[in-house]
Amino acid sequence: MAAGGGTVDVAGAMRLAIEESRSAQGSSSPNPPVGAVIVAPDGSILGRGFTQPPGGPHAEVMALRAAGEATAGAIAVVTLEPCDHTGRTGPCTRALIEAGVAEVHYALDDPNPAAAGGAQTLRAAGVTVVGGVGAAEAEAGPLRPWLFRQRHGRPLVTAKIASGVDGRIAAPDGTSQWITGEAARARAHRQRAVLDAIVVGTGTVVRDDPALTARELNGELRSHQPTRVVMGLRDVPSGAQVTDGRAPLRHVRSHDPAAVLAELEDALWVLVEGGPSIIGAFLAAGLVDELEVYLAPVVLGAGAASVDIPGITTLADAQRFSITAVETLGDDVMLRLRR
Amino acid sequence: MAAGGGTVDVAGAMRLAIEESRSAQGSSSPNPPVGAVIVAPDGSILGRGFTQPPGGPHAEVMALRAAGEATAGAIAVVTLEPCDHTGRTGPCTRALIEAGVAEVHYALDDPNPAAAGGAQTLRAAGVTVVGGVGAAEAEAGPLRPWLFRQRHGRPLVTAKIASGVDGRIAAPDGTSQWITGEAARARAHRQRAVLDAIVVGTGTVVRDDPALTARELNGELRSHQPTRVVMGLRDVPSGAQVTDGRAPLRHVRSHDPAAVLAELEDALWVLVEGGPSIIGAFLAAGLVDELEVYLAPVVLGAGAASVDIPGITTLADAQRFSITAVETLGDDVMLRLRR
Repeated sequence: MAAGGGTVDVAGAMRLAIEESRSAQGSSSPNPPVGAVIVAPDGSILGRGFTQPPGGPHAEVMALRAAGEATAGAIAVVTLEPCDHTGRTGPCTRALIEAGVAEVHYALDDPNPAAAGGAQTLRAAGVTVVGGVGAAEAEAGPLRPWLFRQRHGRPLVTAKIASGVDGRIAAPDGTSQWITGEAARARAHRQRAVLDAIVVGTGTVVRDDPALTARELNGELRSHQPTRVVMGLRDVPSGAQVTDGRAPLRHVRSHDPAAVLAELEDALWVLVEGGPSIIGAFLAAGLVDELEVYLAPVVLGAGAASVDIPGITTLADAQRFSITAVETLGDDVMLRLRR
Repeated sequence: MAAGGGTVDVAGAMRLAIEESRSAQGSSSPNPPVGAVIVAPDGSILGRGFTQPPGGPHAEVMALRAAGEATAGAIAVVTLEPCDHTGRTGPCTRALIEAGVAEVHYALDDPNPAAAGGAQTLRAAGVTVVGGVGAAEAEAGPLRPWLFRQRHGRPLVTAKIASGVDGRIAAPDGTSQWITGEAARARAHRQRAVLDAIVVGTGTVVRDDPALTARELNGELRSHQPTRVVMGLRDVPSGAQVTDGRAPLRHVRSHDPAAVLAELEDALWVLVEGGPSIIGAFLAAGLVDELEVYLAPVVLGAGAASVDIPGITTLADAQRFSITAVETLGDDVMLRLRR
C-alpha cells in the first residue's frame, strides 16, 4: 500500500509502529501502549517512539523528537488515533500539526470520548488522515488489554496453568519445580514484563514463596515489573519474597475476584497464577477471559489438579473455551484458550 | 529415484505400497501388515495388494494376482523383505520368481529369522534386489507395531486419555459424554479399526458400559474389530455392551498389566483406554510406550483426574515422555507423547 507520492509503505510502517508499541506495554498503564513511526515522503524512517510511563510523552511526541527537524511534510503512522485532549501532557494532535506533518495514518479509533476527536482536529488543520490501517493486527497486539478495559470496564484477565498432561500441578509432597521447562519459564518472564499485575493466593505465597518478578535469563530484573497481588484473608509472611520491594505488592484481604479487580483500577492486563482455588474462583465468577495452559510431557499420577471450582457437580457446569493457539516451548506445549 | 530403465518411480511406488498396507493393519495380526505394488518396466502400476488375514495370501501374492499375466520383467515394490518360508502360505519369494519379476525393491529387512533370507533367495534366482527403499517412512507406518513386537516380545502399548485442560475426565456425578468433540471421536474409531485390542478395567465397564467397537460415522461396524479386553477381578455384567458379540471379548481376571499383555499373544498394538487406575497400572509397570492425550477446551474444576498411580509421592517419581505430535481435531487438540 503506498501513500505520500507512491513511495511510502504505510502497511510496513504500521507493523513497525506495532512492534515499537510492545516496549510500552505494561509501563504505559493506565494509558494505552501506542507506537508511532515518522516516515519521510521518500519512504525513509525518520523516527520511532512509544508511549512513556504516565505523565511522560506519548508515542507521537517521542517519534517526532527522534525525527528531529525534518518533519515538515512527513507521514506519521500511529497505532491509535492521536489524542486531542490536554491531560498531563499536551494533545498529540497539536504536536503533529506544529511539526508540519502532512499525513497521519492510524490503526484504531480511540473509543475513549475524552481523547477522541483527534482525526477531526487534524483534518481541520489540513492534515490528510486515514484510519483503520492494519486495524486487525493492532487490535490483536499490545493495545488489546487497553481496548478490553475501555469496552468492559475491567482489566483483561488471563489465567495461567502449568501442569503435566494429567492436569497435576504438584506431586503429593508439594514438589512442583520444575514440571515445565526453561523455554516455558522464559516465556512466562517475558510475559510478566508486559503485565500490570499477577494474582496469587496467600496459600501459594505460604507454600511456594514465589518472587513473581519479571526476570531476564541471567536473573536480572526486567525494566517493568507487574504488581504482585496476594489475595486472601491470611497475613503475608514477613520474610516472603513478594515483600522484598523489588516490585510493588498489594495484599487484598478478600476471596472475591471482583473485589480484587476493582482495586486494580489502573491495570489493563492481569495474570492469575494460582493456586487451583484462586483460578477456580475467577472461573466461577466468569472473570477469566483467556487461559494459558502450559503442559509438560509428564504424567504425575497423583497430587493436586490445576483448577478447583467448588460446587461443580455435572458436565453441564463445565466452562467451555476455544483453543486459539498452540505453541511449542522446548519440550512443552502451551495452549491458549479464549472465551 | 528411477530404476527399471529409468522410467520407474520406485520411491513413489513405495509410498503407494505403504498406503496399501494400511488396509492390512489389525486384520493381518500376528503377521506383519505389508503392502506391495507391481510396476511395469514403463512405470505403469500393474497391481497392488496387502496382507490378508492369517492363512490368506501375503501382499506380494495379492499384488501379483491383481497384475494378472503381465508380470514378466516387472518390478515388485514391497514394504517388507519378501518371506522365504512356507507357513500356512507358500513363500513369497517363489511366487515372485515364478511370476518372472525382474527387480524387487523393499523397505525393511525381516528381523524374524524364520522368515528372513528372502533377499538372498531372490538374488540366487537372478532377481535384482534393493533393500532400504523408503525405510524411515515404512518404519513409522503400519509396520511399526509389528516391528516393536519383533524387538520387544510384547505388543506396542498406547494409552489414551481424553480430558478437559485441567486433566479431569468426568464431573463428580460421573458425566463425561462428551468432553471431547466429534472429530476426536471419529479419529478414535478410525484407530480402533487398526488395533488388535482395547483394554479397560471392570470398573469402566460397570460405570460407563462402553461398546469399544470400531464404528463408521453412521454407526455401522468397521470391517476389523479389536478384541475388547476387560481386566479386573469383578465379573463383567451380563448385559454389558462388551458382551454383545459384535467384537471378540476377553476377560482377564488380573490387575497385572504384564499378565494381560501375556494373554494377548497375537496382538501387535494394544490401546489402554482406562479408567485412571488401569492407565496408572500400565504406567507404573513401565508398559506404556506412547500416550495420546485428547484435550478439550473445557475446564471441569472438579471430578476424577485422568491418571491415578498409587505410591507417587514426589516429582522425581513422575514419568517423562517427549511430545512427538500435536494434532488439531475440531475444537480439541491431541498430543502424542512417546518414551
